Amino acid sequence: MGEKIISSAVIKRLPRYYRYLNELMLDGIERISSKELSARMNVTASQIRQDLNNFGGFGQQGYGYNVEYLLTEIGKILGLDRENRLIIVGGGHLGQALAGYTSFQKRRFRVMAVFDIDEKLIGTKIGEVPVLDMRDAEAYIRENEIRIAAMTIPKEVAHETAARLVRYGIKAFWNFVPRDLELPDGIAVENVHLTESLMTLSYKMHNLFQK
Amino acid sequence: MGEKIISSAVIKRLPRYYRYLNELMLDGIERISSKELSARMNVTASQIRQDLNNFGGFGQQGYGYNVEYLLTEIGKILGLDRENRLIIVGGGHLGQALAGYTSFQKRRFRVMAVFDIDEKLIGTKIGEVPVLDMRDAEAYIRENEIRIAAMTIPKEVAHETAARLVRYGIKAFWNFVPRDLELPDGIAVENVHLTESLMTLSYKMHNLFQK
Repeated sequence: MGEKIISSAVIKRLPRYYRYLNELMLDGIERISSKELSARMNVTASQIRQDLNNFGGFGQQGYGYNVEYLLTEIGKILGLDRENRLIIVGGGHLGQALAGYTSFQKRRFRVMAVFDIDEKLIGTKIGEVPVLDMRDAEAYIRENEIRIAAMTIPKEVAHETAARLVRYGIKAFWNFVPRDLELPDGIAVENVHLTESLMTLSYKMHNLFQK
Repeated sequence: MGEKIISSAVIKRLPRYYRYLNELMLDGIERISSKELSARMNVTASQIRQDLNNFGGFGQQGYGYNVEYLLTEIGKILGLDRENRLIIVGGGHLGQALAGYTSFQKRRFRVMAVFDIDEKLIGTKIGEVPVLDMRDAEAYIRENEIRIAAMTIPKEVAHETAARLVRYGIKAFWNFVPRDLELPDGIAVENVHLTESLMTLSYKMHNLFQK
């Protein structure tokens, strides 16, 4: 694609831009100035201009940004211009919730299957998503060219399972396991540590109370 | 408590220290040097010393850190030395998953009830947790002195519901709704934007592929 290297701070803000632009488009808004966008998003207009300049500066002086164009371009950068298939490894409460969660399916993330080792779960369905035997994961991943795995298994088996999945062809882990996965170079990981986020909230709350 | 103001970057790292120290304690390890802790956590020893110095520097030259003491102190800072009761607002897939998620219950976060408006859900239980009528939320929050609400409702009703919950006494929102809540001063919020984290993962994956 040839674009320059983008800082991870900008990358972290892109999904939020995407969310706001998507809402603007759904509201029928065709263009927006960096000033208006800044007021909505509660960041400075100059930050918006700087961030979006990373991608060739989609705005035009006196016109602002074309919402649909900017949305499409950010979508491409985020890899949302194609279908991203994923599997969920672990069919417990959290795995089931993710399988039934429709919000990210709108962004062309498609949950193909849930894998588990529990005979009682294997063969059932969560909504439309089949629960398959972990022993069939290798063949399934290779045949369906799955690249993303959401990890919702117990932490005790997380390392060993992740290493196996890398051998099967997984390139990206959406990790809900409260453990840092040790992964080889070239494998992407994004952690969602729910208990830690709740602890941070607890800190904020108790600290605000003291003021 | 009287401690000095701590940067938000340090605060974000505290739950991770807590997690590692907890594992050390469960492994029967009584003390650890900043060097050993640094190797395990993959951060520099000097960062560990700096971070922990914010809390009075629990380490001793030539001895290292007492694991249990440090764990207890960080726990206090995070507000984990007391029971933190929470409710879940929205009994869909995600709300049900959180109600059944036991990991944060170990940290003395106790899910008291799930609230919903769906007559089919009200009166049922998710594990041990009752699903109650949203119309009874005010009385319940006041009687049980609930301060934390996990938000797993549709985005269209998020603002209005959050405003009501603040009036009922909620002080902290664990927000899973893909919308930024506008809250009055003194109210804490911690966002878990699942779709955005998946988009970030997608970016990382597609970008690693290009290298």
